Amino acid sequence: MQQIGIGIIGLGTVGSSVIKLLKKNGSLIAERTGIELVLLKAADLRNRKDIAGKAYTKNANEVLNHPEISIVIETMGGVSPAKQFVLAAIRNGKHVVTSNKELIAKHGKEIFKAAAANGVTVLFEASVCGGIPILHTLRECLASNKISEVSGIVNGTTNYILSKMTNEDLGFEEALKQAQQKGYAEADPTMDVDGSDAVYKAAILAYVVSGAHVDPKNIYKEGITKITKADIEYAKEVGYVIKLLAIIKLNNGELEVRVHPTLVPNTHPLAKVSDNYNAVFVRSDAMGESMYYGLGAGGDPTASSVMSDVIELAKKTVNCGSCCGPETYKVKEKKVTLKKVEDIKGRYYLRMETLDKPGVLAGISSVFAKKKVSIQEVVQKESVGNVAQLVIILDNSREKDIRDALKKISKLSTVKKINNVIRVGAN
Amino acid sequence: MQQIGIGIIGLGTVGSSVIKLLKKNGSLIAERTGIELVLLKAADLRNRKDIAGKAYTKNANEVLNHPEISIVIETMGGVSPAKQFVLAAIRNGKHVVTSNKELIAKHGKEIFKAAAANGVTVLFEASVCGGIPILHTLRECLASNKISEVSGIVNGTTNYILSKMTNEDLGFEEALKQAQQKGYAEADPTMDVDGSDAVYKAAILAYVVSGAHVDPKNIYKEGITKITKADIEYAKEVGYVIKLLAIIKLNNGELEVRVHPTLVPNTHPLAKVSDNYNAVFVRSDAMGESMYYGLGAGGDPTASSVMSDVIELAKKTVNCGSCCGPETYKVKEKKVTLKKVEDIKGRYYLRMETLDKPGVLAGISSVFAKKKVSIQEVVQKESVGNVAQLVIILDNSREKDIRDALKKISKLSTVKKINNVIRVGAN
Repeated sequence: MQQIGIGIIGLGTVGSSVIKLLKKNGSLIAERTGIELVLLKAADLRNRKDIAGKAYTKNANEVLNHPEISIVIETMGGVSPAKQFVLAAIRNGKHVVTSNKELIAKHGKEIFKAAAANGVTVLFEASVCGGIPILHTLRECLASNKISEVSGIVNGTTNYILSKMTNEDLGFEEALKQAQQKGYAEADPTMDVDGSDAVYKAAILAYVVSGAHVDPKNIYKEGITKITKADIEYAKEVGYVIKLLAIIKLNNGELEVRVHPTLVPNTHPLAKVSDNYNAVFVRSDAMGESMYYGLGAGGDPTASSVMSDVIELAKKTVNCGSCCGPETYKVKEKKVTLKKVEDIKGRYYLRMETLDKPGVLAGISSVFAKKKVSIQEVVQKESVGNVAQLVIILDNSREKDIRDALKKISKLSTVKKINNVIRVGAN
Repeated sequence: MQQIGIGIIGLGTVGSSVIKLLKKNGSLIAERTGIELVLLKAADLRNRKDIAGKAYTKNANEVLNHPEISIVIETMGGVSPAKQFVLAAIRNGKHVVTSNKELIAKHGKEIFKAAAANGVTVLFEASVCGGIPILHTLRECLASNKISEVSGIVNGTTNYILSKMTNEDLGFEEALKQAQQKGYAEADPTMDVDGSDAVYKAAILAYVVSGAHVDPKNIYKEGITKITKADIEYAKEVGYVIKLLAIIKLNNGELEVRVHPTLVPNTHPLAKVSDNYNAVFVRSDAMGESMYYGLGAGGDPTASSVMSDVIELAKKTVNCGSCCGPETYKVKEKKVTLKKVEDIKGRYYLRMETLDKPGVLAGISSVFAKKKVSIQEVVQKESVGNVAQLVIILDNSREKDIRDALKKISKLSTVKKINNVIRVGAN
């Protein structure tokens, strides 16, 4: 039996779960792979002797400099000092497995360059959608496919909130409170509900699909805080459910990356993904449509992904020179240009308050018509006093044209307020 | 750029699609992997020069004996002569990729033994669920997980038929005709509708999960021909949809493998998998519940899986000694015992015709009670003349007890006919 030494930095939920999984299934892994994974050092500033036993250390350098550790697992999260630790591990000739989405999204380019220079591999399956093996699937299983779209429910917190709003008719605040009670949302839920967490995952997915490092700052982001019960209800009436999607599209070297609430048709596989589950829908030329579904967070599912990366690298260390595939796709970056969100074409859902009198729709329609935006469906909702609720679905149009038209429409004397504009997608 | 020579035997739908995919995306694969896959020989008894060009040959031995071919793709299907060809390729030191479910299900044991003896690997992703990377996922991505259940919609033909019956209220014959018109069912649909095709896939999934070779003949099999519109309607009323499932469960070394129509709760992810799509639901200890969804048949999706195996083996050939994982899990066979279907515990849906008079249900209930089978739900449907339709859902019970009870119930003077017995599952 070959032995491979591993070390862990960061013993929070994920790091602790990795240790527990190794204890529980280490002999099964050995039986399957012929390799015994031996935890030599596990570092955290907090005392974690209860979890790591005699491998515990307060000093990350004991992991980074251990001569018998071949694989360093980084599960501390955040950029600093995780980045320094990961780069040090790489310089010391160690493979790295990380669950750190922020680190890979922001500094993947530098990290992968260092890894290549030092002949080691950095794997990061757990950084996107917890237990779902989406990066491995894109990288290995669809290696013969041209991938044109990856659309994912990549944040469990917001999916839980939107599911509750949809299925139990709760408002945003109430649904958020329930998510917090269930432990699906942090005390400060900002990073989840404003789309920031999903943006990191979108950047990583975009990299694996295209080879391009997209700065998270350049990714269009819209959270779910403006979604109301009314929007969810009206969307339902016209056959849609609202989901926060990370959308990556790649066509002819042109890359779209964005995160925003989206009206997903009821018939689409993503529409049925509820509660805190994640799922990633992929469109590729040979395989067609496929979807990968599971828990996107939590200690055990995330540890499952960490361990699959560790096993891949352990096999590589035992058996190979430079085998088991490149760390991700090799695609020349310069080929890819990031499409501006203004230039993206799509359909749109609008909800607005107008005066309830003849000619209102004619006025709105004519503004759209001038911008060559055509209206697919109009539903006039309840009228209160002299104010009508108007829901409009716009046909495939360029975002800039719609924005320009809406600016004009908001100034019409018949229009009281544009309540919400949500993209319709996943067609 | 490293070159790897490949050969194909069998140029039907799948083999032809592999050639087309290689032509279309060969340079993309080379860019991603650093390996150029070169088709050296492609054999079929039918003239396929139009597809294979100068690689075409009528003689499979030109593939099997070609000194520069490292990977032989077998896409001819059936046992003979595919088995002889695969064994010859193995003896000649060539890795093998096959899409042949019947061959692997029936003769996997012999083939893997030969491969091990000759130091080559046989991969067979395309043999189960076409393009869905389920075997790779079980083998690599869930390598740290104890897998307790794999339940799959693994046959697109029957899923299409059942979906049509469910969503468009068609009868079996009508739905089958539509499936044939769409090319989703063969002129002779027996192998699909009687569950035989799903049994092969169940055997392969069971092997990957447990390491045990289960003879397809020993797998309990029930097709969909007895499912009526009435069953689908009544199932819907109590919150279920009927799917043909291949079910594999592994607990404490005890293995269950079976294929039968199943009432799947509407809330289960498999319930939403419609038309000719396949999906495999997996329950494992670290990851929890996950599902993998896509097209389970068709040239392009199947070719996608074939090519992912080819790429894995090509990387191994270029870079490694014995890397990239064992051909499947290494689990000692003797540890696994196949559970008899009579001993399996589950819930059941019954539909029967009874006389419409007081005391009928009391009589039926008392028979079940004697066998300690408890009734969860009873719905009395329309009564015509003196005959009532009774739908009963039984609580978790041993199949043998239910069968014994039903034998007695069928002899009650108040019971005219037991129309159908369907397992309730995927809880």
